[in-house]
Amino acid sequence: MEQAQRIIIVGGVAGGASAAARARRLSESASITVFERGPYVSFANCGLPYHLGGEITERDALLLHTPESLSARFGIEVRVNHEVLAIDRVRKTVRVLDRLSGETGEEAYDALILAPGAAPIRPPLPGLDDARVFTLRNLPDLDRLMAALDPEIRTLSVVGAGFIGLETVEALRQRGLNVHLIERSPQVLAPLDAEMTAPLVATLRAHGVALHLGETLQRIETAGESLQLRLESGASIASDLVVLAIGVRPETALAREAGLELGETGGVWVDEQMRTSDPAIYAVGDVIEVRHVVDGRPVLLPLAGPANHQGRIAADAIFGRASTYRGSQGTAICKVFEQTAASTGLNEKALQAAGIAYRKLYLHAGDHAGYYPGATPVSLKILFATESARLLGAQAVGEKGVDKRIDVLAVALQAGLTVDDLAEMELAYAPPYGSAKDVVNLAGMAAQNLQDGLLQLIGAEEVGQAVAEGAQLIDVREAEEIATGLLPGARNLPLSQLRQLLSLLARDREVIVYCQVGLRGYIAQRFLAQQGYRVRSLNGGYKTWSMWQQSRTFRPG
Amino acid sequence: MEQAQRIIIVGGVAGGASAAARARRLSESASITVFERGPYVSFANCGLPYHLGGEITERDALLLHTPESLSARFGIEVRVNHEVLAIDRVRKTVRVLDRLSGETGEEAYDALILAPGAAPIRPPLPGLDDARVFTLRNLPDLDRLMAALDPEIRTLSVVGAGFIGLETVEALRQRGLNVHLIERSPQVLAPLDAEMTAPLVATLRAHGVALHLGETLQRIETAGESLQLRLESGASIASDLVVLAIGVRPETALAREAGLELGETGGVWVDEQMRTSDPAIYAVGDVIEVRHVVDGRPVLLPLAGPANHQGRIAADAIFGRASTYRGSQGTAICKVFEQTAASTGLNEKALQAAGIAYRKLYLHAGDHAGYYPGATPVSLKILFATESARLLGAQAVGEKGVDKRIDVLAVALQAGLTVDDLAEMELAYAPPYGSAKDVVNLAGMAAQNLQDGLLQLIGAEEVGQAVAEGAQLIDVREAEEIATGLLPGARNLPLSQLRQLLSLLARDREVIVYCQVGLRGYIAQRFLAQQGYRVRSLNGGYKTWSMWQQSRTFRPG
Repeated sequence: MEQAQRIIIVGGVAGGASAAARARRLSESASITVFERGPYVSFANCGLPYHLGGEITERDALLLHTPESLSARFGIEVRVNHEVLAIDRVRKTVRVLDRLSGETGEEAYDALILAPGAAPIRPPLPGLDDARVFTLRNLPDLDRLMAALDPEIRTLSVVGAGFIGLETVEALRQRGLNVHLIERSPQVLAPLDAEMTAPLVATLRAHGVALHLGETLQRIETAGESLQLRLESGASIASDLVVLAIGVRPETALAREAGLELGETGGVWVDEQMRTSDPAIYAVGDVIEVRHVVDGRPVLLPLAGPANHQGRIAADAIFGRASTYRGSQGTAICKVFEQTAASTGLNEKALQAAGIAYRKLYLHAGDHAGYYPGATPVSLKILFATESARLLGAQAVGEKGVDKRIDVLAVALQAGLTVDDLAEMELAYAPPYGSAKDVVNLAGMAAQNLQDGLLQLIGAEEVGQAVAEGAQLIDVREAEEIATGLLPGARNLPLSQLRQLLSLLARDREVIVYCQVGLRGYIAQRFLAQQGYRVRSLNGGYKTWSMWQQSRTFRPG
Repeated sequence: MEQAQRIIIVGGVAGGASAAARARRLSESASITVFERGPYVSFANCGLPYHLGGEITERDALLLHTPESLSARFGIEVRVNHEVLAIDRVRKTVRVLDRLSGETGEEAYDALILAPGAAPIRPPLPGLDDARVFTLRNLPDLDRLMAALDPEIRTLSVVGAGFIGLETVEALRQRGLNVHLIERSPQVLAPLDAEMTAPLVATLRAHGVALHLGETLQRIETAGESLQLRLESGASIASDLVVLAIGVRPETALAREAGLELGETGGVWVDEQMRTSDPAIYAVGDVIEVRHVVDGRPVLLPLAGPANHQGRIAADAIFGRASTYRGSQGTAICKVFEQTAASTGLNEKALQAAGIAYRKLYLHAGDHAGYYPGATPVSLKILFATESARLLGAQAVGEKGVDKRIDVLAVALQAGLTVDDLAEMELAYAPPYGSAKDVVNLAGMAAQNLQDGLLQLIGAEEVGQAVAEGAQLIDVREAEEIATGLLPGARNLPLSQLRQLLSLLARDREVIVYCQVGLRGYIAQRFLAQQGYRVRSLNGGYKTWSMWQQSRTFRPG
């Protein structure tokens, strides 16, 4: 392929900056021009909440590059405050507005890369245009919000409990402000299934965040000095300021007006080399629709890692290099005070929607060996294909070691590994770092047992019905462990005495056994099954049941 | 397959205990008896140094199970202080010595599992039988050593700088003792290549450990109250006590005397279902020889994770289940004061010995985003096949996040992934946990560039020769960064000015560029290559060169 000589890039943050740098490494002769509508290029989007919260003390730390540094290092021309208004695909030119001078000009390209990103969603509700309603997407947004936080400001409402919403809530609490968190769905952090978010809800409440789950904002009214957020339920929340973190929408206006094809999700359609429906135009980052690697579905997954990777691939394609984008798997992570939550692949809701037959397994185990000090539990949920046992998704929550397990499982998912492979993983073990059988190994082994028919599981959501139909519910934890409570209708027969107390169990009724996290339940289940009982073990034990139970009552109303 | 009714297991720690528990879950009708020569079963072998050092305050925390708990929970009979003296393979019996009573008896088996472990190597040197010379393999060893540490004891020598040796050194320093570390090879921690151990040597020295690398113990002499360790170099070290941590040797006596086949490494030969050359006898854990997954070579890899996994597979095999052992990849990790070092797969020494064509790549990057506080560098080395680009091994060292990267790469190696796959990995990114381009991604991208011919590398060990032959050595770091020093013969042309200063470079001589960690060196190399220069970039930059340089002088003599 012939070398493009004039490359124009629209947008100079993650994907655009990556594309520019890669293009230069591939060609010294190309002219590379980046037009960035905002005043900054290559800033640390993901760092914004942490400067708000004070962890990142220097605002300048968020500026990864300046136009000058990119020019000096790469010979790339970066024009900030320049907005590309239109593309003339026939003449291969763009019309550019200098936002400071107000002048417009025209620039010719051989290859054009669109990396305009996504914009915060601002639903058309009454009152949302008030100057006290903020978003947090870029540095000017952050500057505005921080400038507004004068000492009289005491109470803020954050609307939306996704990654940005949760990070913003934590940042505002760290500044000592009163915070309301309003979320339309009945859970926080939608990429996780509801029960896995129970520890996050608990920590948000423990940190004094006023949670309003399953509540929809209807309008914002001015009430004297403050704002009143009116919810559909009829409730009303008084706030000095509001931060909207409802989500983002791809900035497709430019592409749409140029007649480029959009995907069914509304993102710009691209092929696996990031080429749009016009072969001279590429698109990368939050503006595009990607394929989900698990089910091939088109999705919008605005994530920094994939954006960077896509920028590199677009530059490769321009210079005839064969790299391709394999799709996204949605690996993401969020710090919520002392908790970390992360996930990769599809969750249960998405698998159901996609009609994929799956099984699930919960496991709770220490982030490192229990006999070494400081171990904290990692709660893990894996989802795998019923037939092939291939991993489809994983979610984890805990104080430590969550990122490691999700990264390990993200690679497993990328490689198409099965639960057998999880059982076999040879991970690094010394007491400060893990266990001889890591939680990932244990999950794999338990899933193998499930596949092999050794393990018979019942889900937390099924227990009530089974007991109502006559099942005997047996808590096999030791007596001193059950202070936290038994499941309704359960009786305690500790595993250590089960062999002696077998006569207490009726032989003609199903038995459901559970322990704290599932391991001893499995041992009891194997014992009873071999004694001729119909028996199932509660998936993930009391702990999972308790998380599930909490998730049903997130909404206090 | 018919169910074995009488299972005897020799050894009740990692592999033996796992086999026993799995066997019971598969069969309630089998009789399962574990003979353990020592006084404890299922103790936390890997935790011993941490109780010595005081992190694990309660000795009982190291006892994961007791004979009573195994009996109550699993219906397994555990006889501690019982040594199996001989196997009669024809009659399928074992002769057992009760070490407390001195009586012997005979027990019949249908299936026998050998899990006797490995014993510390005690070379036949004069003086090593002194009561002040210890090993640290089991709880009685630990008890003896701790009992000997009375207040008059001030100075200890640890012989052997492997995992146990290093952990013991740290534990003794934490107790405020003077510590000498004597190692025959010129580096610590043999699973890593020498240059990757430089940060470990630095931290050992910073913590006041007297290092004697490349020094071989010849004999131990008594000198008044203390011991004199005589080294082959002629040096002599005075110590109150000595801990031998030279390594372990599989406890094969029982298997050997029963005529079971041993492998070429001296470990018991087993098939992939852990069956020895006698189909009724299985062996698991440190006593066996395993296949290395990378090159198929037979190796001894005494590791807790694989031992547990093998125990499970042996039990499966006895009950006709088809699980198999895929081999070991040697994933291991070690805490050395504030540093962590870990590796998986083969190192450079092993690849050379195996005659496998490989390439290597060094990368240094933060454990998380540099703009979020507390980031510390992870130094990573990956080794991959020259042709296929398949990952063959990885080593990492740093203060944080080393376990995560090696686990991610261990899964990549298990799955047979290539450097392209590393570049594509979608890992969990938020500023407290990682970077949009993680160090593993960066290593994959750099390796891709190397494979594609975009990146031309020169190793630290080759620079001197190249400069002697006339190459121009250019440090492209900014002026304020070079306080740590330039490479001999280098001159500083900062990357930010390289485009302007090009005329300073002679066109007819090779150029070698380097920066701090390699990224800017690559940018400079691409720039110069496209300007027509013959140019190579220093693999891993100044930091790798500096680690390599230090590794050449570990031995002060």
